[in-house]
Amino acid sequence: MEMKASDLGERGIIDLIWRVLSVHGSADARRGALPHPDDATAVRMNGSLFLLKSDTFVKRTDAPRGMRHQDMGRKTLVMNLSDLAAKGAEPLAFLFSLGVPRGYSAKRIEGLVQGLAEASEEYGVPILGGDVCESRELFIAGFAAGRADRVVRRSGASPGDVVAVTGPFGDTAAGLRILLGRLVAPPKLRRRLLQKVYRPSPRLKLGRKLAEAGCVTSSMDSSDGLAFTLNELARSSGVGMKIGSLPVSPAALEFSQIHSLNPTDLVFFGGEEYEIVYTVARNRWEEALELSGAVGGRLMGIGEVVEGSRVVYLEGEREVPLPPKGWEHLK
Amino acid sequence: MEMKASDLGERGIIDLIWRVLSVHGSADARRGALPHPDDATAVRMNGSLFLLKSDTFVKRTDAPRGMRHQDMGRKTLVMNLSDLAAKGAEPLAFLFSLGVPRGYSAKRIEGLVQGLAEASEEYGVPILGGDVCESRELFIAGFAAGRADRVVRRSGASPGDVVAVTGPFGDTAAGLRILLGRLVAPPKLRRRLLQKVYRPSPRLKLGRKLAEAGCVTSSMDSSDGLAFTLNELARSSGVGMKIGSLPVSPAALEFSQIHSLNPTDLVFFGGEEYEIVYTVARNRWEEALELSGAVGGRLMGIGEVVEGSRVVYLEGEREVPLPPKGWEHLK
Repeated sequence: MEMKASDLGERGIIDLIWRVLSVHGSADARRGALPHPDDATAVRMNGSLFLLKSDTFVKRTDAPRGMRHQDMGRKTLVMNLSDLAAKGAEPLAFLFSLGVPRGYSAKRIEGLVQGLAEASEEYGVPILGGDVCESRELFIAGFAAGRADRVVRRSGASPGDVVAVTGPFGDTAAGLRILLGRLVAPPKLRRRLLQKVYRPSPRLKLGRKLAEAGCVTSSMDSSDGLAFTLNELARSSGVGMKIGSLPVSPAALEFSQIHSLNPTDLVFFGGEEYEIVYTVARNRWEEALELSGAVGGRLMGIGEVVEGSRVVYLEGEREVPLPPKGWEHLK
Repeated sequence: MEMKASDLGERGIIDLIWRVLSVHGSADARRGALPHPDDATAVRMNGSLFLLKSDTFVKRTDAPRGMRHQDMGRKTLVMNLSDLAAKGAEPLAFLFSLGVPRGYSAKRIEGLVQGLAEASEEYGVPILGGDVCESRELFIAGFAAGRADRVVRRSGASPGDVVAVTGPFGDTAAGLRILLGRLVAPPKLRRRLLQKVYRPSPRLKLGRKLAEAGCVTSSMDSSDGLAFTLNELARSSGVGMKIGSLPVSPAALEFSQIHSLNPTDLVFFGGEEYEIVYTVARNRWEEALELSGAVGGRLMGIGEVVEGSRVVYLEGEREVPLPPKGWEHLK
């Protein structure tokens, strides 16, 4: 029987792509200054690094129920900027390819572009171009370019480093449970949770500050889910991690108490949360905290890098393994 | 009644996008070093220009009958590189977003990536990244980045300049008539015509050479059709054009004779041909010809830039207006 896209899944297709590309010399991934896999790619030019990122928003699979077109546009920009933020880059330009069905409402397209334009203004990233094509369903393929003097890779963590996150987790997983109609929440709590689902923000200032200072040893955007991200950093760096404290948001904690849920599920196995996960050299932890405060950001230590390859959460005395589960397209 | 995407068409949606973006200060198109509309966009970095381009291949609307997946991958790269070539840029990197239906054959996806990888090798442009998502139909959103010390705009033509093209036209329009089953051709002629439909090439070396030398005053990739391109260059530069000679390919001429077609239709109103249309300063025409020959390219003078705003073809004594007709998505 013939293999299908859904047999491979998003990650299987990505593996297939890199396997085919690696056969061809000039397409060699090693020519990039930030080797695959990482949050973005990079080329060197005139002594600086030029970072490039593409990420696509497909309405049918990526828009949670109730999301306005304005927020879809906004989120497409955020998704792409968050990866540049994680690598410490200053965004320079954004382009997008808009795929739109013939019968699509012009007003909704306008809303979408308004969301892109507003986010572009909010984050100071000019939208310089793009293209429009006919498609059976709405998609926005985003393309961001940025620059950096040095980038933080996924692969630099060493035993002893502090594992840290730029904000608490759990709101999005709770919000999606509400939107899927599985669970409910009081109006105020519901609004707080859904705000994170509909209008996430990238950690641009904090990301640049920490990369420039050189006090972080590895980094990755957390949008694939916290457990997945911790595992990927550990795998790339050839280390293990012990997570001792749960970075749960107050709203997610309240939600988990109302429904007698284990908050660790919301925190570790969500996704679509645009925090950055860092490892920080132990002797520069205080400095990293100060720098974060100076740009109005947060940095929460949640554990440490250890020898080995296991990623575990310390629940009291017990070491609970954190598998690299996360959302995957086409699976 | 509510306005729909198909009421606006591809160009109407692009106008809508720029109207919305121009309301938002930080998204201001003028911040780009190559203002809209042009073949690509550009940002300045460390004294160089970094050019960015996005263009999407949607299988349902963009793949002519009989096109192999390998050639679809190849063409996606060519479409994007051709615009960089027209602006005189050296391509640095290519990324792509692949949208794929769940049931799509893994073998075909592999073919597609092979075509991308082969073109990447052929043109020396590394493919550095991308993303994969689920979609109702196959699309490849391509993103190319390049650099240049100076770029050629659409807007620099002056009366007296020579209008020139980098190769003959008509093969693609003839080939598409064959594929649509409307007309036939003997096997050898058919192969020659379809080769241009399935496997176009960008004029990278020639494009860089002419831009670097500074002997061209304006330029545009001809993929929207020759008449459309001439009109767009004239409009951007605030000039008119008189086209005195027809750059018809021998194969297209043969095809038009077999079917008693007017070859001007094939030449001017085709599309998907990846030549560059230039205007060249009259006193540098000989130099431009020499430079073209030196990189193994061609440059064919077809007319001249004139005062006014009319774009006409001189058929004997008669001035035939060339309207800006061309292929448009969503119309």
